[in-house]
Amino acid sequence: MGHPPAQHDVTAAAAAVAPDGGDRGARRRSYVWEDPAVSAATARELDGISFLREIAAGRIPPPPIAVTLGFDLVSVEPGRAVFSISPAQYHYNPIGSVHGGVYATLCDSACGCAVHSMLPAGAYYTSMDLSVRFLRPVTTGSGRLLCEGTVTHLGSRTALAEARLTGAGGKLYAHATSSCLIVRPSG
Amino acid sequence: MGHPPAQHDVTAAAAAVAPDGGDRGARRRSYVWEDPAVSAATARELDGISFLREIAAGRIPPPPIAVTLGFDLVSVEPGRAVFSISPAQYHYNPIGSVHGGVYATLCDSACGCAVHSMLPAGAYYTSMDLSVRFLRPVTTGSGRLLCEGTVTHLGSRTALAEARLTGAGGKLYAHATSSCLIVRPSG
Amino acid sequence: MGHPPAQHDVTAAAAAVAPDGGDRGARRRSYVWEDPAVSAATARELDGISFLREIAAGRIPPPPIAVTLGFDLVSVEPGRAVFSISPAQYHYNPIGSVHGGVYATLCDSACGCAVHSMLPAGAYYTSMDLSVRFLRPVTTGSGRLLCEGTVTHLGSRTALAEARLTGAGGKLYAHATSSCLIVRPSG
Amino acid sequence: MGHPPAQHDVTAAAAAVAPDGGDRGARRRSYVWEDPAVSAATARELDGISFLREIAAGRIPPPPIAVTLGFDLVSVEPGRAVFSISPAQYHYNPIGSVHGGVYATLCDSACGCAVHSMLPAGAYYTSMDLSVRFLRPVTTGSGRLLCEGTVTHLGSRTALAEARLTGAGGKLYAHATSSCLIVRPSG
Repeated sequence: MGHPPAQHDVTAAAAAVAPDGGDRGARRRSYVWEDPAVSAATARELDGISFLREIAAGRIPPPPIAVTLGFDLVSVEPGRAVFSISPAQYHYNPIGSVHGGVYATLCDSACGCAVHSMLPAGAYYTSMDLSVRFLRPVTTGSGRLLCEGTVTHLGSRTALAEARLTGAGGKLYAHATSSCLIVRPSG
Repeated sequence: MGHPPAQHDVTAAAAAVAPDGGDRGARRRSYVWEDPAVSAATARELDGISFLREIAAGRIPPPPIAVTLGFDLVSVEPGRAVFSISPAQYHYNPIGSVHGGVYATLCDSACGCAVHSMLPAGAYYTSMDLSVRFLRPVTTGSGRLLCEGTVTHLGSRTALAEARLTGAGGKLYAHATSSCLIVRPSG
Repeated sequence: MGHPPAQHDVTAAAAAVAPDGGDRGARRRSYVWEDPAVSAATARELDGISFLREIAAGRIPPPPIAVTLGFDLVSVEPGRAVFSISPAQYHYNPIGSVHGGVYATLCDSACGCAVHSMLPAGAYYTSMDLSVRFLRPVTTGSGRLLCEGTVTHLGSRTALAEARLTGAGGKLYAHATSSCLIVRPSG
Repeated sequence: MGHPPAQHDVTAAAAAVAPDGGDRGARRRSYVWEDPAVSAATARELDGISFLREIAAGRIPPPPIAVTLGFDLVSVEPGRAVFSISPAQYHYNPIGSVHGGVYATLCDSACGCAVHSMLPAGAYYTSMDLSVRFLRPVTTGSGRLLCEGTVTHLGSRTALAEARLTGAGGKLYAHATSSCLIVRPSG
């Protein structure tokens, strides 16, 4: 059982911009997420790659932030995780393009999940930092973007990962690095 | 004319978590934002501090991302901007706390607006990067947080700003720095 | 016994630029340092602040890198360390100013020693990263600079420190942050 | 005319550690560099790749910092520059390994030169920042290291470069990113 893919599709559809007919151009958006305590509990039981594959397959609900910002984990393999997002008006800053925080959220997710994918059951990680470089503006005209995280270095207590946010034709919109602290089950 | 404060209050109220009564703990949230083209056009006409004060006063609608993530510009003065947020479940990552991207979004906003507050009409800035350090986990129990951005260095073509995300008693949750590229009207 | 201050002064004097009389403007520099295994062994025995005070007082020889690049630890207190440097031609990059690596070395030292100053005997730290922002060019005309490191956050396993490189009148040349991993003696 | 390679070899040989026979393990090092105003003037006349190839070939003297810290530009092509260093005792920090500032200097050089290699005559760059991740300790036993810088993104006003510091077998000791501001000759 679990989280039916159809439900997930509905949630994604809810992210579409829906004008409310008002005269000042107000827009409304509704969305649904599930209790993150469920996925957090499962994260403690499974090894990282299995946990993330369950999310990618829609069998564990995506985290609330992913629904709030409308991004998805599209694939994961050991040391690599890929997210996608379709830039929308609800991501905008006050000066006419997607807010840098949206880039940062995707890069942080991609880096963190790439590291998580390498951890055995019982281990966990904490992101210590994120250094993101904004290379090009993103607008609703940019089309669907992918954010690929890869592990650059995996040590016993720390890991370093990189993320690349790209669009059509591999156009690079942002680059990021992130260090994670790893806590492994004591042996 | 303008953006009535009452409308803004309603939008903030809409950010509250509302269980949908379902059996898997699904939550629903609805919110309303306004066309960001309006604020972007005004941003080009006003000097930075005037523009930001209009947003803080609710006379220019907040940017969509601020409504999407539920944060507010609470004060601005030359070289300094303060945002607030009340951590909520819709900010959560899959492992049981607020996603680092939410910290990053606040820090990026605080740094960017601190720089923007120093710019004359006709000048604009672009964030080149954000380097954020996550110092403590944030949960719904952390209470309301403030994110204060200050300008560390203002040059003719670039600026550096810092942000501090703090909670009750000045507890530090994150620290960030950000470089901005400044384009000034040619004289 | 220990490291006589006079010796240290001679070493500093040796850093002065001495033209060799050649026709292409060649310069020569000689300097002396002491075996770093001595200070490394002492570092393991003393608490951080005592160790650093011995270096600042000239009773433990400075590390080789400090003599190589001509910088000094001028003061240390818990959570704060200050270095000084007099920019010289031997610090130059190929494009006519002090190389960014010199700024980085000072900032890394200031951050690391600020953290080290908070550690008890038996604990040690490792710098995980350094994020340095270059704000102004440094030349031989900039005069003596100070680099002050302070601890922003001290946790049980990690610490964050900041450094500011300043000249006359508090002019800011660089800003940096650095995360350190801390290993404490197991209880 | 120019800078005879033999002279360069002598300079490199001078970097060898030479005990002074003292009883406290003091070491002495002497080295020679040339007036950096010469290379700075040439840098303004040549396009970036030609200028850097002259340095790599020994026909333009290396910058003073390269002789001070004992590193060399070993190859350059458009968008890529490689330096080498042999870790020595004069690079050491007080706690028994090569100082992080040495890693940072190499990474900053590699990033900066990779960007410089893409610039036409009359354009110049300034490093805005360096974010370096220290992944493993370097000691005199690490052997010769290479630091490869590559351009990640080249815009009209800014560029982003990455550097990787590696040893035998491609072992990764550090990773860095750096943003540069580019000033192009006005058309």
